[in-house]
Amino acid sequence: MKFGGTSMATPDRIRRAAAIIAAEAAAGKSLAVVVSAMAGKTNELVAWSDVLGAAAQGAPASDDEYDVVVASGEQVTSGLLAIALRNMGLRARSWLGWQIPILTDDSHGKARIVDIPGDRLGQAIDAGEVAVIPGFQGVTRDGRLTTLGRGGSDTSAVAVAAALKAACDIYTDVDGVYTTDPRIERKARRLPRIAYEEMLEFASMGAKVMQSRSIELAMAYKVPVRVLSSFNEKPPEAGQGTLICEEETDVEQRIVSGIALSRDEAKVTLLGTPDRVGVAADIFSRLADARLNVDMIIQSPAMTAGAANLVFTVGRRDAAAAEKLMRDAQSAIGFKEIALDTDVAKVSVIGVGMRSHAGVAGTMFKALADKGIAMQAVSTSEIKISVLVEAGRGEEAVRVLHAAYGLEEAA
Amino acid sequence: MKFGGTSMATPDRIRRAAAIIAAEAAAGKSLAVVVSAMAGKTNELVAWSDVLGAAAQGAPASDDEYDVVVASGEQVTSGLLAIALRNMGLRARSWLGWQIPILTDDSHGKARIVDIPGDRLGQAIDAGEVAVIPGFQGVTRDGRLTTLGRGGSDTSAVAVAAALKAACDIYTDVDGVYTTDPRIERKARRLPRIAYEEMLEFASMGAKVMQSRSIELAMAYKVPVRVLSSFNEKPPEAGQGTLICEEETDVEQRIVSGIALSRDEAKVTLLGTPDRVGVAADIFSRLADARLNVDMIIQSPAMTAGAANLVFTVGRRDAAAAEKLMRDAQSAIGFKEIALDTDVAKVSVIGVGMRSHAGVAGTMFKALADKGIAMQAVSTSEIKISVLVEAGRGEEAVRVLHAAYGLEEAA
Repeated sequence: MKFGGTSMATPDRIRRAAAIIAAEAAAGKSLAVVVSAMAGKTNELVAWSDVLGAAAQGAPASDDEYDVVVASGEQVTSGLLAIALRNMGLRARSWLGWQIPILTDDSHGKARIVDIPGDRLGQAIDAGEVAVIPGFQGVTRDGRLTTLGRGGSDTSAVAVAAALKAACDIYTDVDGVYTTDPRIERKARRLPRIAYEEMLEFASMGAKVMQSRSIELAMAYKVPVRVLSSFNEKPPEAGQGTLICEEETDVEQRIVSGIALSRDEAKVTLLGTPDRVGVAADIFSRLADARLNVDMIIQSPAMTAGAANLVFTVGRRDAAAAEKLMRDAQSAIGFKEIALDTDVAKVSVIGVGMRSHAGVAGTMFKALADKGIAMQAVSTSEIKISVLVEAGRGEEAVRVLHAAYGLEEAA
Repeated sequence: MKFGGTSMATPDRIRRAAAIIAAEAAAGKSLAVVVSAMAGKTNELVAWSDVLGAAAQGAPASDDEYDVVVASGEQVTSGLLAIALRNMGLRARSWLGWQIPILTDDSHGKARIVDIPGDRLGQAIDAGEVAVIPGFQGVTRDGRLTTLGRGGSDTSAVAVAAALKAACDIYTDVDGVYTTDPRIERKARRLPRIAYEEMLEFASMGAKVMQSRSIELAMAYKVPVRVLSSFNEKPPEAGQGTLICEEETDVEQRIVSGIALSRDEAKVTLLGTPDRVGVAADIFSRLADARLNVDMIIQSPAMTAGAANLVFTVGRRDAAAAEKLMRDAQSAIGFKEIALDTDVAKVSVIGVGMRSHAGVAGTMFKALADKGIAMQAVSTSEIKISVLVEAGRGEEAVRVLHAAYGLEEAA
């Protein structure tokens, strides 16, 4: 079981999480519980570290001492939850990252888990003790504290589940994964099941339910993950929440599982780039060297012979940097004009079923065209088709596509 | 070096502490620095633990999970100070209690240090790295976190100094130990030196400069301790602060070092206790069994033959418990009446010099009598004479005695 920062925000919320855990224990389950820091706490600790490290000449923002500071947030909630569980008559103890140990590499601030010896932990759990584990933190083989990067508690939870050969329930402030954001489309439906690959696409599109890394890990170790609401105090019944699992266990044969909207998009247009081999490679090497993630890429012939127009999208916070990088290299690359447009949104249709079904793109393009929603760019993957539209029409596009694929109907 | 919670209260204060440390390092010293949690932080963590553990049936307030929670406060400041020191160009790292390790027994919430293997720590310091150590925390041989009880960071600092065979500078919000509280007597003087035994008496009288346990430890391991102000940014010069050291090194040959006032006193009077062997033993055994610390005891003949009046003092927060304990045992003990008086204060004259000088008590009693200050009780030790007076005249008594022993004059 994993509880996020909202579920740990106050002693009262911690008590509520303890009640859910106690109900699961009463149902005869052997439990390990991974917790986040109190909501807002990690930001506070990071801010203090940044203030004191700010003026450092070339010192990295995240180092070993940063990890000593920020790992403390989860230590607090793990101890508090253990206290609350004992107070309900359960046997419980906290297992800090270095006590298990959750071994990581030494990439402080964004460490990767390399091993979790599950023996001692497993023995304690088998003996009937609830193990409470601070998420986000680990330890190097040298005994230095590490943290896994923001949202790392999901990764901790899946990794612990993998080490214990257990299933993983993620308790969060939503009761599952939906066909689209219910705030955009009232008719959005909770999906009882979703494939790892689909969940990955949803996560990378900004759905805040789980961190992408944790889903990749679950997929690699075949850990069944269930997303559940932490607002129920009763043990979850079968069919509640959303089960994230392997594709073949998904018997629904859906073609499209959901529609995602990302507002964090910016479009860069390079007009009149020289139409010769190596120009595109030059442009995207420069962007990659500057660690600017490019998402969609469209190349089209320009009006002038021997020239092409090139469009790509980046995240909004990278937009200014990408534009500056291109302007600085304008003469080297040889394009004529550059334009930056942040008034765009990306709408994606996601579904593992589209691998084996033609016509998904056709339905999408027709539905948008019928409403006069212009597509500024298109990109596709095996299980996703994304289009870039005018920002003001993004939500409308979501509703149009939700209806076009019949997602409001029970599967 | 040890910095308390006030010196760690904000990033700005932490930066100021780092500047003091950097100045000491620049002076060529090898340094270990022990830090408290941010002022107020431990109270917050304790409050959360108490709220969640409150309803526990018979569960101890301080257990292993309480320690997991409250030890986090010092972890945060040790990491932040290490960040600040690195930012000033120093080599520094935090050493958490379990990393050194600071081994303790398993009396959670009030653990005692049993060993500090200083080898690895000493090597790192000798190699020019500032070691930043969270105070207050330790670890059992089983690898469970412990804390040393409130104010335990002083004890951590002295213990680390003992393990490293180093001297210990305690940075605090006063610039040394005074002949008496300067808020009571303007003419109070800073003592350049004070014997461990004297400092113990000052500490047990409520002087908040250092925790008693830490002074006992310093005395046992002959660790020279200096109390210094954390408000200077320059390295302390010789003669600054107050050096707490062995008696024989104190060449001043003072008779009385200072006057202390304790307002945390309550007087219990038992009238008409039976004047027979074993009654006093019975009374004080009952108080000891209930863990109520008795300070002064005076027995005097009562007006009735075969009876005695017995007066004792306890700390104010124990007063109600002591009174109830006595009332419940009234028929068993056989006294006639009980009276509780919290309108009292204790004034003490302290000095290792009084061991070899007669006349100290005479001077005290005469000075108080000349001003008409009645002594309700007297107790003496080898280096201290305490009298109980009406609370409203406590400060006046301090000033009278400060003058009577000539403490305002340069020694």
